[in-house]
Order: sequence, then structure tokens, then C-alpha cells
Amino acid sequence: MPNTARWAATLTLTATAVCGPFAGSALAAPEPGAAGLYAPSALVLTTGHGETAAAVTPERAVTLTCVPKSSGTHPAAAEACAELRVSGGDFDALTGRVGAMCSKQYDPVVVTVQGVWQGKRVTYERTFANECVKDSAATVLFAF
Amino acid sequence: MPNTARWAATLTLTATAVCGPFAGSALAAPEPGAAGLYAPSALVLTTGHGETAAAVTPERAVTLTCVPKSSGTHPAAAEACAELRVSGGDFDALTGRVGAMCSKQYDPVVVTVQGVWQGKRVTYERTFANECVKDSAATVLFAF
Repeated sequence: MPNTARWAATLTLTATAVCGPFAGSALAAPEPGAAGLYAPSALVLTTGHGETAAAVTPERAVTLTCVPKSSGTHPAAAEACAELRVSGGDFDALTGRVGAMCSKQYDPVVVTVQGVWQGKRVTYERTFANECVKDSAATVLFAF
Repeated sequence: MPNTARWAATLTLTATAVCGPFAGSALAAPEPGAAGLYAPSALVLTTGHGETAAAVTPERAVTLTCVPKSSGTHPAAAEACAELRVSGGDFDALTGRVGAMCSKQYDPVVVTVQGVWQGKRVTYERTFANECVKDSAATVLFAF
């Protein structure tokens, strides 16, 4: 390869290596995120007493952000993000809390999750027989 | 009052004073909040290029919490919360940015807001002709 071509190739490679991660192109991540570097993940979780979200006044609401770092008003944001990553963002595939003992009392609580998980919109609603069952359905995600 | 009754009354009053704020009852605020003291306000805002949220992949998503203090991944959380308070949580009543100069280019962006504002569920969607119009529709709320 002539020297000029070699230099050009080297420069191109260097530019790609240096600028690639910041280019916001499809190279870095499946979808551009808040800074063009990652797909956004930002959620609001609510809970309230009742059977359906439509009929329930949300009593508590927390935020959860998982990239670039775990944050939000969720009381255990880091663990909640870890749980979601393990389940691939599938709220029905969360691993319940081991050894939880809940009564069978029927005092339903409904949880909603809305927002975006890894670039995809999330609209989730699930009703639990009581608060204990809700808190135990995931290790920490629903315990807020 | 016999001594026993007086003691019972004192104990009841003490228990009410100590436990009241944590009881999640309707005494403290119009609606119980994250700590039973205020109505929750926690939102996720998204934006993406296109005409309707259903057809758009969210490119950016930020969280916004306004009580007990402003927080979240919104780049100007405190100002965004102040704007929402002024508008009474009405996303159509926000005051636009003064002196914004936007082109008439049609490159639509859609903003969604979901979650809870002062204890009430929020589901809001609005399409703007272009990014500049979106950013100027409110002082800071939609500029993320």
C-alpha cells in the first residue's frame, strides 16, 4: 500500500475509533438514547388500593431510570434495575421473593408501570390480592 | 376521671401523635403520597420523531419528580416543576418561551407525558411541527 493510502486508512480507523461511540449512529447501540449513546429507560411505577388502575387513585408513585446509571425515587433503584435486566424487561417474568409468607386476605392493590424500557414503550398493569403479595412478586421492584 | 381512664386517654393521644403521620390516613394531605404526607407527582416524558406516540420509537425519555423536592433526569427539573405548578398541571396551559424563532419546516415530533401529577394520573400526548416548536411550547418542560 502506498504511504498516502496507508495514512488515509490509519486516519479513518482512528477517527472511527475516537468518534464512533459519540456519533449517535446505529453503531453504538440499537437505538439512540438521551445522549445518543443508549436506548432510554425511564419508568414511573404507581400503586393504589383497588382492582384496576382506571378506578384507583395512585397512592404512591416512584420513578426509575436504569441508564446510564440507576436512579430515581424508587427506594431500591439499583436492585430494581438489576431485576429488570435479568427478566429482559418482562414484568411478568420477575422472580418472586424467596420465602415470602403472605396471608390470603383479599385487599387488592394494583401496580402500573409506564414509560420506556430500553427504547420500547411500556404500559403494564397488574393486580395483586394484597400488599404482601405485591411486594413479594419481585425481589424489590414492586416494593415501594 | 379515674387514673386508669386518664392513662388510657394519654396513651391513645400519644399513639395518635406518634403514629398519625405514618398511618397513611387522609388526615395529613388531600391524598396520601410516597410517605403518606403528600400526593405523589412522578412523571416520565418521552419524545420521538413522528406524528403519533403509537407509531414513534421514543428517542429520549426523562423522569421528573416534583415532591418532596424536584428531581429526575429532566435536564431542568426544578424549573420544569415550577412551570407545572404555575399551569396547575395543565399541559395545554403552559406558557411558551418568549421570543422563540422557529422555522415552519414540518418534521413532526411527538411528546408524551405519563405518570401522576399531584395524585392524579396523567396521560398526555402532543405533536409539534418540529423540534424548535416543541422546545418553545414551554419554557423548559419539553426541552429535553
